[in-house]
Amino acid sequence: MIKKPYLLFLGDAHDRLAAKVAIGINDWRPQYAVGQIRLARCNADLGIDEISIAEAVERGAKTMVIGVANRGGVISEGWKPHLLEALEAGMDLASGLHVLLNDQPDLVDMARKHGRKLFDVRKPNVDYPIADGQKRSGKRCVAVGTDVSVGKMYVSLALHQEMLARGMKTAFRATGQTGILVEGDGVPLDAVVADFMAGSIEYLSPAQDDDHWDFIEGQGSLFHASYSGVTLSIIHGGQPDALILCHEPTREFMRGLPGYKLPSLEALRDLSLTMAKVVNPDCKVAGISLNTRNMEESEARKVVDETEQRMGLPTTDPVRFGVGKIVDSLLAI
Amino acid sequence: MIKKPYLLFLGDAHDRLAAKVAIGINDWRPQYAVGQIRLARCNADLGIDEISIAEAVERGAKTMVIGVANRGGVISEGWKPHLLEALEAGMDLASGLHVLLNDQPDLVDMARKHGRKLFDVRKPNVDYPIADGQKRSGKRCVAVGTDVSVGKMYVSLALHQEMLARGMKTAFRATGQTGILVEGDGVPLDAVVADFMAGSIEYLSPAQDDDHWDFIEGQGSLFHASYSGVTLSIIHGGQPDALILCHEPTREFMRGLPGYKLPSLEALRDLSLTMAKVVNPDCKVAGISLNTRNMEESEARKVVDETEQRMGLPTTDPVRFGVGKIVDSLLAI
Repeated sequence: MIKKPYLLFLGDAHDRLAAKVAIGINDWRPQYAVGQIRLARCNADLGIDEISIAEAVERGAKTMVIGVANRGGVISEGWKPHLLEALEAGMDLASGLHVLLNDQPDLVDMARKHGRKLFDVRKPNVDYPIADGQKRSGKRCVAVGTDVSVGKMYVSLALHQEMLARGMKTAFRATGQTGILVEGDGVPLDAVVADFMAGSIEYLSPAQDDDHWDFIEGQGSLFHASYSGVTLSIIHGGQPDALILCHEPTREFMRGLPGYKLPSLEALRDLSLTMAKVVNPDCKVAGISLNTRNMEESEARKVVDETEQRMGLPTTDPVRFGVGKIVDSLLAI
Repeated sequence: MIKKPYLLFLGDAHDRLAAKVAIGINDWRPQYAVGQIRLARCNADLGIDEISIAEAVERGAKTMVIGVANRGGVISEGWKPHLLEALEAGMDLASGLHVLLNDQPDLVDMARKHGRKLFDVRKPNVDYPIADGQKRSGKRCVAVGTDVSVGKMYVSLALHQEMLARGMKTAFRATGQTGILVEGDGVPLDAVVADFMAGSIEYLSPAQDDDHWDFIEGQGSLFHASYSGVTLSIIHGGQPDALILCHEPTREFMRGLPGYKLPSLEALRDLSLTMAKVVNPDCKVAGISLNTRNMEESEARKVVDETEQRMGLPTTDPVRFGVGKIVDSLLAI
């Protein structure tokens, strides 16, 4: 478990997208972000206090999170003095980069010297079991998409937040780098070995009280040739009671797969339910989440209404219109 | 690529099942097996010549294959003198055990000293790409099952052999330990990292002549909660033109998943075709393979005939009745 709160390190992020990990943390857990560090030529800005490492420690920061990704996922030499300083000042480091903190001898030495920890969230640090398919108590919700990057993590975090606001028992279960850094814990599923994928999801989402909802972060898509196996292992390891269908209405082709058209929401519903019913015959679709970022407000309203009518399911864009009605739908399950 | 022919090492296999890797090799590639080595208390016997390491070298053996698995997949101390002797005598070693040859300092030293190789087929030794879903030339066939261990590898090897006998262009593409040792090459899919599963299958089964058939070894089952993600990555990486449905008619519950009933062949057909059509809209089911090992001959005949009638698809038990009619069905695609 990564200790909070965080100092968010943006390095020399050349644009906003490069800092998406830091943005995700600050959007979803602003209470964890005591401030940001931006180096020269940094073009991303979270709009929170720019502070020094010493100030971060004064404000109680326990971990400096590398909230930036660069080409190749390497640890830039220009960042090193700051990383070393953070360790020296008493903070742990956390990173979702491909290149590992734990493979940097200077960081490893400094961490050892000061009794600090280096968290590489891209690397599993648990021996996950093989899934046993045993029914677990508690409720589980999995977001599935017509494609990758259609807002599965976002709607899950929003539903979790809405349930918290209503005083309900709930947890967000992260399966990707950003989600893990947002939550401070989780399974880096894309780096788990094939035989243990579904088992890692069972491990991530153990038995709970009957009125507790786990929101398991989705990955990939059953229709995306590159990652569909990862998606299916979440559905079969997650034993969902409810599915949320996610879609980006303006997208025509699958991301990274030129020539592959997106499936319909109907096809997504049918295939996802068929798969979920293998492990939970009572699974239902609770609602639809549309990512309308590329649309005008009026157009977004229209596509949400039309989709809701056509599919007969509560439909929303979590960012624009909130997720209240999907939580109502979950509670009716 | 593991060099052939092989000396098959059965060690102290306590029963026939413990030697299933050696049995698979000897059943499917008898021409690769120059002989067997059985230690004291070995209860498995391939019925081929028992020879010494020196005799194996005389007969041209290039690799000694550990054809036995014991509890925990460890390398028994009692085997060590024989493994060292084989290296010294000029053979490579190959193993599908969990514990790796390459993690044994004495074997590594001996191999280095004599310029020999240690093949751990459980460990990927290639950096597989992420699948790109691009259409590849040539024909591909994937066997899918109502459960694990229902004869997917067996029917694929039988179809490959039948096509070879007919003088056709064909390859067997191994995805499991036994298959890799039978073929001498392949992808140890259960040990591949999640993001690269489908890509490893694309790598394994590259573009070929239009009249060439690849038989890609299936793994798991879309209906088996523990391994379904692995299965789906084979379907989506394999872009099958044809599917073979595999089933064990006497089995009631999924292996390792008490309480999970086997799906029907109809459900397997529908779900597998839906999945395959994501990557190849023209995919067809070419036939059904029943494993009738637990039935009398007359009963087997009856269930094969009934299934063929009910499903309207060429049906056989490859062991009892051959696979000629499924090859005919593949050629009609």
